Order: sequence, then structure tokens, then C-alpha cells
Amino acid sequence: MLRVSSTISFLKIGRDMMNFDYTEKIQKLQRTLIEFMEEIVYPNEKTYEEQLNCAESRWSIPPVMEEMKQSAKEAGLWNLFLPDSEYGAGLTNLEYAPLCEIMGRSFIAPEVFNCAAPDTGNMEVLVRYGTREQKDRWLAPLLEGEIRSCFSMTEPDVASSDATNIEASIERNGDEYVVNGRKWWSSGAGDPRCQIAIVMGKTNPEASRYEQQSMILVPLDTPGVHIKRMLPVFGYDHAPHGHAEIDYDHVRVPSDAIIWEEGKGFAIAQGRLGPGRIHHCMRLIGAAERALEELCKRVQKRVAFGKTLAQQGVIQDWIATSRIEIEQARLLTLKAAYMMDTVGNKAAKKEIAMIKVVAPNIALQVLDRAIQALGAAGVSDDFPLAAHWANARTLRLADGPDEVHKSAIAKMELKPYEKLNALTK
Amino acid sequence: MLRVSSTISFLKIGRDMMNFDYTEKIQKLQRTLIEFMEEIVYPNEKTYEEQLNCAESRWSIPPVMEEMKQSAKEAGLWNLFLPDSEYGAGLTNLEYAPLCEIMGRSFIAPEVFNCAAPDTGNMEVLVRYGTREQKDRWLAPLLEGEIRSCFSMTEPDVASSDATNIEASIERNGDEYVVNGRKWWSSGAGDPRCQIAIVMGKTNPEASRYEQQSMILVPLDTPGVHIKRMLPVFGYDHAPHGHAEIDYDHVRVPSDAIIWEEGKGFAIAQGRLGPGRIHHCMRLIGAAERALEELCKRVQKRVAFGKTLAQQGVIQDWIATSRIEIEQARLLTLKAAYMMDTVGNKAAKKEIAMIKVVAPNIALQVLDRAIQALGAAGVSDDFPLAAHWANARTLRLADGPDEVHKSAIAKMELKPYEKLNALTK
Amino acid sequence: MLRVSSTISFLKIGRDMMNFDYTEKIQKLQRTLIEFMEEIVYPNEKTYEEQLNCAESRWSIPPVMEEMKQSAKEAGLWNLFLPDSEYGAGLTNLEYAPLCEIMGRSFIAPEVFNCAAPDTGNMEVLVRYGTREQKDRWLAPLLEGEIRSCFSMTEPDVASSDATNIEASIERNGDEYVVNGRKWWSSGAGDPRCQIAIVMGKTNPEASRYEQQSMILVPLDTPGVHIKRMLPVFGYDHAPHGHAEIDYDHVRVPSDAIIWEEGKGFAIAQGRLGPGRIHHCMRLIGAAERALEELCKRVQKRVAFGKTLAQQGVIQDWIATSRIEIEQARLLTLKAAYMMDTVGNKAAKKEIAMIKVVAPNIALQVLDRAIQALGAAGVSDDFPLAAHWANARTLRLADGPDEVHKSAIAKMELKPYEKLNALTK
Amino acid sequence: MLRVSSTISFLKIGRDMMNFDYTEKIQKLQRTLIEFMEEIVYPNEKTYEEQLNCAESRWSIPPVMEEMKQSAKEAGLWNLFLPDSEYGAGLTNLEYAPLCEIMGRSFIAPEVFNCAAPDTGNMEVLVRYGTREQKDRWLAPLLEGEIRSCFSMTEPDVASSDATNIEASIERNGDEYVVNGRKWWSSGAGDPRCQIAIVMGKTNPEASRYEQQSMILVPLDTPGVHIKRMLPVFGYDHAPHGHAEIDYDHVRVPSDAIIWEEGKGFAIAQGRLGPGRIHHCMRLIGAAERALEELCKRVQKRVAFGKTLAQQGVIQDWIATSRIEIEQARLLTLKAAYMMDTVGNKAAKKEIAMIKVVAPNIALQVLDRAIQALGAAGVSDDFPLAAHWANARTLRLADGPDEVHKSAIAKMELKPYEKLNALTK
Repeated sequence: MLRVSSTISFLKIGRDMMNFDYTEKIQKLQRTLIEFMEEIVYPNEKTYEEQLNCAESRWSIPPVMEEMKQSAKEAGLWNLFLPDSEYGAGLTNLEYAPLCEIMGRSFIAPEVFNCAAPDTGNMEVLVRYGTREQKDRWLAPLLEGEIRSCFSMTEPDVASSDATNIEASIERNGDEYVVNGRKWWSSGAGDPRCQIAIVMGKTNPEASRYEQQSMILVPLDTPGVHIKRMLPVFGYDHAPHGHAEIDYDHVRVPSDAIIWEEGKGFAIAQGRLGPGRIHHCMRLIGAAERALEELCKRVQKRVAFGKTLAQQGVIQDWIATSRIEIEQARLLTLKAAYMMDTVGNKAAKKEIAMIKVVAPNIALQVLDRAIQALGAAGVSDDFPLAAHWANARTLRLADGPDEVHKSAIAKMELKPYEKLNALTK
Repeated sequence: MLRVSSTISFLKIGRDMMNFDYTEKIQKLQRTLIEFMEEIVYPNEKTYEEQLNCAESRWSIPPVMEEMKQSAKEAGLWNLFLPDSEYGAGLTNLEYAPLCEIMGRSFIAPEVFNCAAPDTGNMEVLVRYGTREQKDRWLAPLLEGEIRSCFSMTEPDVASSDATNIEASIERNGDEYVVNGRKWWSSGAGDPRCQIAIVMGKTNPEASRYEQQSMILVPLDTPGVHIKRMLPVFGYDHAPHGHAEIDYDHVRVPSDAIIWEEGKGFAIAQGRLGPGRIHHCMRLIGAAERALEELCKRVQKRVAFGKTLAQQGVIQDWIATSRIEIEQARLLTLKAAYMMDTVGNKAAKKEIAMIKVVAPNIALQVLDRAIQALGAAGVSDDFPLAAHWANARTLRLADGPDEVHKSAIAKMELKPYEKLNALTK
Repeated sequence: MLRVSSTISFLKIGRDMMNFDYTEKIQKLQRTLIEFMEEIVYPNEKTYEEQLNCAESRWSIPPVMEEMKQSAKEAGLWNLFLPDSEYGAGLTNLEYAPLCEIMGRSFIAPEVFNCAAPDTGNMEVLVRYGTREQKDRWLAPLLEGEIRSCFSMTEPDVASSDATNIEASIERNGDEYVVNGRKWWSSGAGDPRCQIAIVMGKTNPEASRYEQQSMILVPLDTPGVHIKRMLPVFGYDHAPHGHAEIDYDHVRVPSDAIIWEEGKGFAIAQGRLGPGRIHHCMRLIGAAERALEELCKRVQKRVAFGKTLAQQGVIQDWIATSRIEIEQARLLTLKAAYMMDTVGNKAAKKEIAMIKVVAPNIALQVLDRAIQALGAAGVSDDFPLAAHWANARTLRLADGPDEVHKSAIAKMELKPYEKLNALTK
Repeated sequence: MLRVSSTISFLKIGRDMMNFDYTEKIQKLQRTLIEFMEEIVYPNEKTYEEQLNCAESRWSIPPVMEEMKQSAKEAGLWNLFLPDSEYGAGLTNLEYAPLCEIMGRSFIAPEVFNCAAPDTGNMEVLVRYGTREQKDRWLAPLLEGEIRSCFSMTEPDVASSDATNIEASIERNGDEYVVNGRKWWSSGAGDPRCQIAIVMGKTNPEASRYEQQSMILVPLDTPGVHIKRMLPVFGYDHAPHGHAEIDYDHVRVPSDAIIWEEGKGFAIAQGRLGPGRIHHCMRLIGAAERALEELCKRVQKRVAFGKTLAQQGVIQDWIATSRIEIEQARLLTLKAAYMMDTVGNKAAKKEIAMIKVVAPNIALQVLDRAIQALGAAGVSDDFPLAAHWANARTLRLADGPDEVHKSAIAKMELKPYEKLNALTK
């Protein structure tokens, strides 16, 4: 049955993309990926969850994940996210977009293809800014999917949406750095394979606003690293990945653990967040497409008050509105991707900010309509709607809340008029 | 600290109610209840959750709950929901409204006061339609809070929003009834104290549309009652209460287990749902108030981009909009309560339908704004926002989805014009 | 035919009000008013417009208006707005609310009953703060409906939402005041019967923030008063009333033209705006009710794609949503009125701000749905929808834009928590 | 000053379009058109209105219009809308899109470039389906801008959103056709240069659903053509263009006045509406861009409560939301245009339906925010916001109301799942 459904998806995706002229290479990757999703990923979503529940602890790796990863590698669907062709697939953002969207349809898919956050962002950081030693030690096993990593930036005690608020300290002491601070939402730290954290903190609180921060590599087995607890998201533990609150208590790492150099934390974050954000958006569009698909399937089967739900005007309104929202969000995401590829992440920052606002919000709306159409089944885990919803909800906060992005967009929008005002005075 | 906060709440609630002229008796109950919440309930929310997590299984009763229930009884805060003065507090809906709202502020509170669904609805059914024997056997221990109960109506295989779709059967066989059917979202069946289910099914599929259904009492230890699994709600298991999928497989109960008589299922459901719906709405308003309180507290403490969040225009817009939504929803709920008390549940059905749509939706919006304002903390369980949100989301579906109520409102609204059309033809 | 429709309205209104216990006196006024509307006002809406269009200029008074006013006086439906029982009907705000709502259903009705803005506000100012001479000269003929008046506060060159921005000056010069300034949106100045303006300006720019402003009476025939043009509202000229841009150019008035005393402009404005705002809200609810009535009538008659519009789900959703919005807005308006009557305009300022935001917005939404349901007819003047819409749209700006009221609500909402923060530090 | 502003617009537009690879030819047309708008069109908006108001009747042609038309012809900015290269500019829809958007910024611009509805649609019909004689007689002077035309389809007595409801009749009688019917919203019939109507009516009510209708050419001076009145739109008369109610009373035209052949009315309408709809959408995006520009300019100049409006969070939220909505709507419109060009209007019908819903709605929202930001000025005609708003509002109804398009989208969306259901049964 899924095979048929996938054909629908394929045609649909094929048509949407057309004005961005995908090469035969990308179209082939799309086809391979869709087939892989149907044959391997979707059928194993339940298996994955069952293995997790049957294990002694949910904080362990379901064997089916490693099997799927092996298959994905063999199918050439590995590290597609990485634009660098030495280490990864060497695709542009525009080329990766339709592939990443497909992965986003399943909660377990990104890891299968070694394209899951926060590893993708961490790997990019290491490719761009890592030393030869850092690459050998951490990038290599990450690229192989042998280990996982986390990213410690957000702090519980301050409004982290304003990065200058960050309080963790990274102090030079001889040939070591001493890291102190309380971090939370260090996603992925629950995974038993997670070995390394990239930690953001202040090396110099006296420096200028954007040069106070640095990033440093902290192996999770370093003395002083205490995982205090795993934070739930709307009731989901997201095991075995998880979201950790971590206490870094006088953690000592050698001085060559610093990334790039002191004071570059903010610059690295900016570079890291652009692609990270657009990947989230692509996946969210995939999640929204899957929700609309579940909705459409269901409403044709259920009958209430003498007609199928599909024949009811309000349901039709939801379907049309969802399709309109998805189409528009996808086009804007592709435009942002295209701009990142052609004029650079910096010139594309307004577009990146726009999709970062749009994608989670439309995904939430489409998911919510699907939940409502499915009734009680929608809020349970019999369908992937509630879980996708909870995830999408966090993405209105993660990597900057909507409001911060909107404020940034407005300022960019107003800038030319400021100049105009100056000229006409 | 909470004591201060409660004074605020109290004044606020006092002021809102004034045009509905609460008697000194009710005002005193409000004060007692608010004090009880602050001294006993709020401080034990974490204790409750900890005891649940430390127990061998989450499907057990945290001892603190029974202690709180004992205190509530002693404080005279017991069975306030029951308008019948022989068995309960004998309050009108209008009188119960501000009390129920206060209980709704805490997830664990309704049970503390023996005012939790679905027991309240089930007790009302037994008070109104139960035989002397049924009352002695089931109502008495329910009123004492010794046992709990569930309600089996929704089915997985049909659109249960249209009650005529229900497929479970209750067949007379000698001096027994045989119950067959698959039910889900039988809330409360996970509780080890849950002993009795009220099951809805068809006794006569050939009868007229509204007389096919009956309700019957099924002790959960009857052979053939199989609890298949507990359904999560957005990742929450809602243990130890839970939402069960139950297979009733040739379950035999004596013929005097029928409630009222054969064919009265629909009539009982209508009577049961009116008060049940308005209680949900009152509690949702309480949840929204608490969310707004958490939001207001937090935004005064957090600083981003040089000012507190409280000073930022968008946050102020959220606060104002939330206050406006809550005020309007409360007034409409009070009006519905007043009408139920004075002209009856049937004459109040448009108003009941209206609040059933309004209350969950505004609660979700207020909760969502609070979550956004709190950032990552909001989606976790460090605050009662995500849990309240998940609960409120189910209430756009439970007891009829929004769309069914809206359609009913529209039809009532259109009716006078139909007559007018007929007259003017 | 209308008689039948009115019965519907009457029953509906009667029911909504019941928990506010209207006396027999008010119920009788309601009945009389509804009959008057149906027999005299609605049938003459077209006549009024035709007389206006046939006159030499639209800036003249259609004779039917004076006839209707005479009838209203005779029916005892005159000056109902004025709480002062010496000069007016002596009704409370709560008592006036359902009557004002009914008047709001027709664009021409408020004037018929001498309850039209800005005269109502101006009369209240004169009753409260006017000297004996000012009352004799201006209040008496206004109360009789012999002359009309305007209010000159808003200015074209500054953001008048912040009253301290006002630039007009009122300078003492011997026993005269000299008024200078450009005002616009001086509504009613187009009316040939309009003889007097209340003008707001600064008597002392050096005084403290709220004592710089004064109000002064300026007869429109004073030399230096130049009506520059009449401003349209979404294409409507609102003749013969109109919205004037007025240049006050060295206008000299005697010193006893000042109202109350120098520096009281802000205080008078505050007192004037409370009742003025709530009247607008009551009328907007009436406009929304009429829109819903037009919608309901129409959708039962029109057929598209094989069913009446009334049978289509989306239309039903609009009807239900509209009813819900209207009910809630009315209850909040009544609560605000009740508070103004019982605890005073100042204590009710949060509630007044809330309805000032709610009423125009819900009226716009209900009107917009009705327009959409009526199709092309809806945007024309064959129905009173487009005209009511344009008027309601201005009321999101007049007497303070939504955003200013919301900000005020938020600040009031946050205040108790500030104290709490102080206490817990 | 405008010159500077235009540069901003140009850069912005240039950037938005880039991924659709505009040729140098189109980029040059954009530049020429933007310059023409700034030098000729914007400065003459007020002149146009003044000439209209000073004329004996508003139903006359302001001389400045004919002057601007002459200049546009000379600048090569003429008939750009027509994809046919024999008669028009021969641009694709994708190429015309950015040009049409620019024209949409000014209410008077489309006529200046001979690109105004309904002439554009009528010309397309004549190019595609007209006989040589029809082309010589009507198309030639329309292409020259010497005469104008109207389109009579909508009827006052039926829900015209369902085209099968149409009641006008076109009966063959000898070598003539007799046309009978009441039409309204025949836009453009107020123009003294308007000489010809295309009228839709039933030639054969017994034929199959989509073959009952025909279109016929009716010169407006034919006996029996009675223009009953001009309909206002939110108070605007839209003179001299106007929206006419026309009574066709036994109007006789020769048999060769039929377009294409009997029974082709529906087919022609479908062909006519696709491009007509997308032109409306392009212009609406231009109107929205202009609104956002007016908003941005204004909020930097006005100060309230100690800061410019531009610094206030809510205003920034409006700007960001507006930019996001416009970007998405433009991309979807371009996609629809691209599909019309490459796979045909029929294959693009879902995309056309989507933009027909999106563009008026986002334009209304952006315009409404700009109105709110400008305050009272926004609802007047000192800025082009209220007029654009009223026009955009009609476009949620014209060429099919939102609801009809959404229903069509939903059905197209559901279709693949119907097949899937069939396959899996």
C-alpha cells in the first residue's frame, strides 16, 4: 500500500521542484530516498519504538537503527547534508532541500542517513573550523555514524534568545581551559553513543559584545561533566536522544580543545545556525506533508452525519489551507536555499529568518488540523502527528524564538528607509 | 511567596464574579479553597510526581494523594460538584463555577476534592438514574473517594463524534446482558482503584435513531474485560489515571446492571454531558489563568536586548489578548451555568455548545503564549504549561469536536429564519 | 415581514440580558425602541439616502431625519444616553446598553434619538463641567436636537494616539483666548446645523504632562475657523455629518469659553472618553447582530452546487463563530457598563479598554463574513454591511488605536506582579 | 524623493525574481516601467483625481489619462499583458508577472499601459476565439486603447459563484440572437468610451451542464441595453470605470455576434479566467508592496510614547509578517505563472486557485496593517491604502469567492487518495 502512496508523493514533489531545475542526479537521489523510506524506514518506525520500550532502559539504542544506518550507507544515502565534497555528499542547499524534506517525514529518518541534528551542525563546525587533530578525533567517527555529539549553548537562568546573556565561562589556566556553567537543552546527550559536546561560553567578558564568546570541545567523560536530568518535551522524553541539563563544574580540557580561536564563538554560531535552521525547515515541511497525507487518507474513510469527512466543507477548507501553506513555505525555503548557495549565508539572512518563522508555524497548523480530523487517534502515538507537533513546537523556540527573528526581519526591512530619511532631510 | 500570589488571584476572581452576586457562603468557599490550594495542593504537585516516578510502576497511587483527599474532606471541600444536596454539596452550576475554576489551576486538584472526571459524570448518572442497589454498590464508595470509575463510549473504528456510529452491542440473554465491543479513551481505567465502567452500546439496532443505545454498569474484574493498552496524549501517559483501550469480549453482567432502562443511553448521555462539559470549561479557564500568571511572573524577571520581556510590545500584546480572551470565556461560561440553573440544560444547549468551543481554544492560546514567553522551560515539565496544553488539546475533541458543536450552534441560530422564510413565502 | 424578524431579535435580546436583571422599565423601553426601529427607522434608511442624493448638495439635512426625530421625542425615546436625570433619561450604563445596541443596528438611528456621537460626549462634558451660561447657550439646544456640535482633538501632523503630542495652542490674551492649530477628523462639522466645536489645545506647554491641555468652546462662525475639506472614510463621505479638517487660525473667543478651567483638558478627555467608548461598543454589537441577521436570511435563500449556502459547512462555521464572538463581546460590554455604574469609570478602565479593543474587531469579523456570504451585494450599499464595516474600521483607531489600549491593559495586568517581585526580593 | 524610493523597490524586486532567471529584455522592461511609474504615474495620481472631481460629472475621462497612455505607447510599455506576439507584447506569464506587479502599485496604472481589466480578458477572448470581423471591429480599437469594454456575467438574483445558476438567455431568432437578462458588476460600463459588452447567457438550458452557456458581443448602444445604476464598492464609485447593473431587455444582435460558437460559454470563461486571475494576483502583490512601503516610511517619522513607531515591537511584528506574506505570495504566483507557461492553464489550475485565494487575503492584511499604522490618515484618500483595500476586498469575491476555490483545491488534493482507496480495497 505504501508503494502507491509514495508514487503520489513522488509526483507531487517532482512537480513542486520543477522550476528550480533539478539535475538528473538529484532526481535520482529523490527516487532512491523515497523508495528507501517506504521499504525500510516507515515499516520500522513501530519496530524502533517497540525495541526502545522492551529494552531495559529507553536510553539505549534500538538495534534496528544500526541496521538501517548500514543499509543507508550501502544505498549511498549518507551524509547528504554536508556541502563539503571531501567529507560529505557535496550537495548545495538547494539540492539537499527536497531530500531533507523527505527525511523529515519520519522522526527516525534523519539519524538513519546520518543527517540528524545536532550532529550535522557540529560536523559542519568541525569541517570548517576544526584542526587536523580535532577532525581526526571527532569528525571522522561522527561522519561514520559511530559516535554522536551534543551542543551546549542554552542556559536555564537567562533569556538565551539574546546570546550575549550567556553566563558559562571558559577560562584559560596554564595549558588548559576550565569550563564552568549550567546548560540545558543539550539535545542528544542522552544517547549512550554521545561522546563529545561543543560548549559555548565566555572566554573574555570584557571583550566587545560579539567577541566575548568561544566554543570548546568537551568530551562527555571529562571529570566535572554532570548530566543532571533529561528534560521532557510535552511529555515526550525523546529517548534515547534526549535533552539534557548538564552541569559543567570546573571541567578541565587541554587548550587545543578550543575551536578556531578564542572569541570566535559568536561567529561560529552564526555560521552554524544558517544551515541548521534551513534543515529544520525542510524537515518541518516534510512533517507537514505527511500530516496532510494522513489527514487526506483518513477523511475519506470516516463517515459522520451521513457523509465522509472528506465531503464536509470545513475539512475541505483545512485541506486547501494546508496545501496553500505548505506550497508557500516550501517555495520560500527553496528561495532561501538558493540564496545561501549563490550569494551566501549572510546575504540570505533575511530569507533564513523568514523561513525560520514560517516553517514551524505552518507545520504546527497543518499538524493540528490533521490531529483534529483524526480525532482522539490524533493525540496518541498511533499516528506520527502528536510527536511531530511537539517537535515542531520546540522549533518556534530553538535557534531563536519567532519574535527575535521577526524583529531582525523588520530591522532589515526598515533599513533602506532610514537611508532614505537621511537623504531627504 | 505563593500566599501573596494567591491574594492577587483572590481579588481578581472576586471582582470578576461580582455581577453574578455570589452569596457569603460561596465567597467563603472560594477563600477556603484558595487557601487549601496554596497550602496543600500547589506545594505537593512536585511531590505527587516524584512519588509516581519513584514507585515500582507509575500505575499506582502516590500516597500524598490520599492524604490530600483526607484533608479536603476535613476542610469541607468535598463533592462540591454535585448539585444534589442529599449526596453532595448542593451547589448550583453558577455557584460551583468559580470553585471549579480554581481547582482547574492544578492538574492534581480535581481528584483531591473528589471532583475529577469521569467520576463526577458517573456519579451524576447514578444519582439521577441509578437504582437503590446501584447507588449502594457504586455511588456510595465513589462519593467517599474509595473507588474510581471509567466511562466507555468512544470507539476506535468509527467517527464517534456521531454517536449513532457506535458499534458495541449489549445483548439481552436470559437474565444477563452480554457486552461486546472495542472501546478506547476510557479515561481513568489505569487507576488501580478503578472498579467500575459505564459502557455505552446498542441494545436494539433496529430502534429509532436515539433509542438504539443503552448504558450498563460493568465491573472491571468481570471476565472478558481486557485492558489492551494505555493511550498516551502528546507523550503524556497521564498515569495513574490513564486512557485505556478496552476490549469487552462476551462480558456477562446481570440484567439489573442496566442504567435506567434499555434505549435510554442517548438520553443519559445528553444529561451527563451538559454538566461534564461546563466543568471542563471552568477548569480550562483556571488553567488559562494560571498560565497568564506564570507568564506575567516570568517576563518581569527575564531580560533580553536591554529590557525585561515585560517591557516588550509583543509580550504586552500577548498579555492583553490573553486577559481579554479569559474574561470573555469566563463570562460566557457563567452565563451558560446561570441558564442551566434557571432554564435547564436543554434550553441552555446553545450556550453549552458555545463554551465547549471557546474554553479549550482560548486556554490553548493563552497556554501557548505562556510557553513561548517562557522559552524552552515552557515545553518541559518544570512549569505546568505543556501538561495543561496537552490536556486542553484533547478537549477540542472530547465530548464532541469543535466542528460538531459549531454546526449545532449554526443550526440553532438559523432556525428562527427558517420559520421566517416559511411565514413570508 | 420585518415585524416577524423583530420578534426574533426581541426574544434574543431579552434572553441575553436576563442575568443582569433588567427592570420592567428597561424592558419596556427595549420593546418601544424595537418597534420604533421597525416602523420608522429601517423603512426610512433608503429614504434618507435618496433625499440626500436628490438634494442640491449632500451636505444638507434630509427632511425625513427631522420628522423621525420628532416622532422619537414623542415616543419618549430621547436623550436616553444621558445618565443625568435632570437633563436626560437618567439611565445607568447597564440600562442604556441594550438600548444603544439596538440603535447601533442602523446607521441613521443614533441621531434620530439624539444619541449620536460626538454630541453625546459633548453634552456630557457640558453637563459635568459647563457653567450656567455655557449650558444655556449650547447644552440646551443640543439636548433639543436643534443644533449639532463637533470635537476637535486629533491633529494631522502628530501621532495623536499619544495625547501629549498635541500641538494646537490656546493662548490667553487679555480677556480672550487665541486658538491656533490644525485639526482633522472633527466629525460632524459638515452638518449645516453644526454650530459649536470643543477644541483641545495647550494653554501651558510648560506645565506637567497632564496639565498642559485645555478644552475651549469655539463657535464655528468665529473668524479664523476654516473648514479646509471633508475627509472620506473608505470612499464614504459620511455626509451630511462628515469628518472635517479644520484650520484654527488666530481664532479669538472670550475667556469664559474655557471649559472647567485651564489645564483640565486631559482630565475632561478622560471623563469624556469612558462613556463615549462604551457607547461605540454597544452600537458595534448592534451592527454585528444586524450583519449576522442579514447573513442568516441570505444563506437560506441562495443555492450553489446543489444546496443552500446555509447547508454548507463553512457557512455554518461562520455563523457559529459569529454568534460566539457577539455573545462574548456583549457580556464583556455589560460587565464594563456594570462596573462603570457601580465602582466608577476609573476602576473600570481595564474593562473599558478591553471592550474598546474587542467590539470593533469582532464587529469587523462578523461584517466581513456577512459580506463574503452575500457576495458582490455585500460590498455595495444594497445592504448596510460595507458602510458598517467602514465605520467599525475607523473605531479601531478612533479614541485610541487597539495597540494603545492593549498596552494599557498589559500594564494594569502586570502591576500586581511588580509588587509581588518587590515583596519577594 | 521618489527616485530614491524607486531604487529600493527595484533592487528588491530584482532580488526576489532572481531564481527565475529573467532575461535582460525583461529586466530592462522592469527598469523602464519603474522609471515611468515614478516620473509619470505616481505624480499624476492626484491630478487624475482632481480632474475627475472638477469635471461636470465623475463619469468622464480625465485628460491626463489619455496623455499618460500616449507616453506609455511611446515608451514601448503597451499591451504587455498579451502573450500573443502578433497583437501584443508576446511575453510569457512569468515574464509579465514582475511588470504587472509594478503596475498594481497604482490604481490608475493598469489603464495607462492598456493592461486593465476587464479589457485584457476581453481582448484575450477575441484574440483566441474571435472571427476576423470581430477582431477588426472590436479587438483593433481595444488594442489601441481607443475604446473600452465590459463583461456581463454575474447576476443579482442567483449565487453566481456556481456558473450553472446563470439565468440570462440568448435565444436564436432567425439570423439574430435575442438577449434577455439582468446583470450586475459589469465593470467598466460607466466609462464613456465603453462600447462593447461580452455577455454570458444560456443558449440551450437543455444541454449538458457545461454546454448550456454561450458568450455574445453586444454593442452598448443596441436598443434594449439599459444601464440601471452604478454600484459602489465600500463607498467608492470607481468612476469613470464603475460597476454597472445592466438590464438586457430583448436585445437583438446579429447571429455572427456569437463568440466561437453556441455552447462554448463555459469553455471560454475557463480560458479567460486563468490569466485574468493571475493578473489580479500580481497587481495585488504590487498593492501590498506599496502598502508596506507607506507603512515603513511613516513609522520612522511618527513618535508616540517616547519612541518612533518603527521602534515598537508590535509594529516590527507587522512589518516582518507582511514581508513574509508578500514573499510567499509572490513565489506562489510566479510558480503558477511558470506552470501556465510550461504545462498549460489546465494543469496549473490548482496553483491558479491557490494564488486566487492567497493574493487578495495577504494584500488585505498588509493593507490593513498599514492603515492601522497610519492611523486616521490610513482610512482616508490621502494615501492609496483604503482604496486598494476596497478593491482587494472585492477580489475575494470576483472570479469566484475564496470558498469555491478552496473547495476545488481540496478536491484536487483528495483525488489521488480516492484512487489509492480504490486500489487498496
